[in-house]
Amino acid sequence: MNGQYKALWLNKDENLVVLDQRLLPFEKKEVIITNTQECIDAIKDMTVRGAGVIGNTAAFGVYLASKEAGFDIEKLKILSNKIRESRPTAVNLMWAVDRMVAVATTCSKETMCAVLKQEAINITDEEVIATQKIATYGADEFEKIVEKKGKSKEDTINILTHCNAGWLAIVDLGSALAPIYELQKRGRKVHVWVDETRPRNQGANLTAWELSQDNVPHTVIADNTGGYLMQQGMVDICITGADRVSRNGDVANKIGTYLKALSAKDNDIPFFVALPTSTFDFEIYDGVKDIPIETRSEDEVKFIRGINKKGEIQELQIVQSVSNAINYGFDITPARLVSGLITQRGITKADLKSIEKEFSDLL
Amino acid sequence: MNGQYKALWLNKDENLVVLDQRLLPFEKKEVIITNTQECIDAIKDMTVRGAGVIGNTAAFGVYLASKEAGFDIEKLKILSNKIRESRPTAVNLMWAVDRMVAVATTCSKETMCAVLKQEAINITDEEVIATQKIATYGADEFEKIVEKKGKSKEDTINILTHCNAGWLAIVDLGSALAPIYELQKRGRKVHVWVDETRPRNQGANLTAWELSQDNVPHTVIADNTGGYLMQQGMVDICITGADRVSRNGDVANKIGTYLKALSAKDNDIPFFVALPTSTFDFEIYDGVKDIPIETRSEDEVKFIRGINKKGEIQELQIVQSVSNAINYGFDITPARLVSGLITQRGITKADLKSIEKEFSDLL
Repeated sequence: MNGQYKALWLNKDENLVVLDQRLLPFEKKEVIITNTQECIDAIKDMTVRGAGVIGNTAAFGVYLASKEAGFDIEKLKILSNKIRESRPTAVNLMWAVDRMVAVATTCSKETMCAVLKQEAINITDEEVIATQKIATYGADEFEKIVEKKGKSKEDTINILTHCNAGWLAIVDLGSALAPIYELQKRGRKVHVWVDETRPRNQGANLTAWELSQDNVPHTVIADNTGGYLMQQGMVDICITGADRVSRNGDVANKIGTYLKALSAKDNDIPFFVALPTSTFDFEIYDGVKDIPIETRSEDEVKFIRGINKKGEIQELQIVQSVSNAINYGFDITPARLVSGLITQRGITKADLKSIEKEFSDLL
Repeated sequence: MNGQYKALWLNKDENLVVLDQRLLPFEKKEVIITNTQECIDAIKDMTVRGAGVIGNTAAFGVYLASKEAGFDIEKLKILSNKIRESRPTAVNLMWAVDRMVAVATTCSKETMCAVLKQEAINITDEEVIATQKIATYGADEFEKIVEKKGKSKEDTINILTHCNAGWLAIVDLGSALAPIYELQKRGRKVHVWVDETRPRNQGANLTAWELSQDNVPHTVIADNTGGYLMQQGMVDICITGADRVSRNGDVANKIGTYLKALSAKDNDIPFFVALPTSTFDFEIYDGVKDIPIETRSEDEVKFIRGINKKGEIQELQIVQSVSNAINYGFDITPARLVSGLITQRGITKADLKSIEKEFSDLL
């Protein structure tokens, strides 16, 4: 993993350390996870979030659970299942837990600890490589697109993204942000439109922070703004991550993604989704119909966190108590609105035939 | 005007009183406007907002300016022009100022005061009648739509709205909310999805408050949520107000409206725009290209107002200082996405031919 950019790591006591993503950008705090329940809590309360990092946290969670279970495989399965159910939409979570449990079943009590630790590290390291490939494939494609539009190498490439799919979401370059980091590395001028991403503001809090750490020019906008920017020709490319992609190419991602994809389509702007292959759910053939969407607490809509004049993190109520609110975490962008899926294998069309062909070995 | 619901009125000193809409729903405070500058400030800083109420405030502002000008028509024109330029997108502002000035030119110094006062009252009273007609035409249409969908008189009608176009925006029933109030009066069950409407949260702050004052069931949602609700069949009808509608039926309205119109189209859900005829700008033939869009302070994106645990109104910073933000106030919904324009004359198709035919006397 990249030394500078780490969303999670093992400490010297072999416990998992994660960045508390609820406090960024205003406070950088580490949280230590030592057992199953702490792992579940961190995923549920969004101390960690982002498809990949949830999967990584869960993988290390299964490793920690194995100690708690005294390396008894039946006990481990029960604990692992609890981790697996901590959030319903991001499929990397289920994928990572299943992979860890499958490996555990091949172990003796004596070997389980070391094997599971290594497997969790492997899962994370594989994703590091995946993000590097996504960076390259994405940047190649984006350079082609803007060249075709008549932009020169000196012109700024304007990219819109929703939520956070950077290294805080998928180690260590992210999915959606990986091609952006790569373009900047290649000396291209990039500017990112950052959707604030209500209600949890992962765009304003996390993406803007990530980009500023790397000196990537960016502008935070209300989620309502992207349509106007696209109407006015101020966006060259849209890219987001994904929490689950079905076999037919439908994309479950942070609520609001679908609206940006509609607007991109209406304005002939390419709309890409970047993901490691672990984000596919090949069992689901119709994402719009069958991907489960998480409903979270209405308090995430009614209260907001920020800093007061003293620089202290504080919470305010922004919806009157007598009003109801509802908080769906994700929506589904139908495959027909997606220009391409960028994975570690390249760019795949978002349709059943192309996906089955490209990923036949994973089906 | 309706006694219970007033966004503005003249007090016994013949000054204008407005509700401070920046503090609702957490505090109900009246602001007294006595001269041109106070009128301009109230419009600029959004003490008052909403196409109609901006126009009304401006009309009374011209009346107050006439006293300041010593009923000198040339001086009045200079002051009026300042009011006219206080915000760029809502056309009711320009329309109301122009109408007031035109009347003033017909007055002697002796009659100007009384005539302008009456004209401002007339402008407001005409809009009261317009909103009553919009209520009736809209409710008739909505009842037809849900009947056609197979809903019974007992079934709830789910309506999504963006921003605030209730009586706080256009006295005294509003534009977009007028049919909703009428449906409830007719004994229909209504439920309103209220877009919070970032960055100023007019939905969460004003629409939710208005609806709760009248016991209309409603749910506040992040602006990102409407697409998912429409995908899932949870919205029967969308309706918004407008800040300016061009001769070809393009609609300038609060930023984000366009995204909801796209989603409505994609899911075969009717998308209506309600407006008094004063919101038309017949001089503009291509709204997408030619309606000017206001850019407001980035601080409206970077800071948010709410109440703290003590119940006091307070502001928090929600975007880190090192990040830029940009704040476009409106977007344009192309006419092709609008199912119908609801005015005091009925429902008109959003296209050049239909608009020119229906409003030929106003061209």
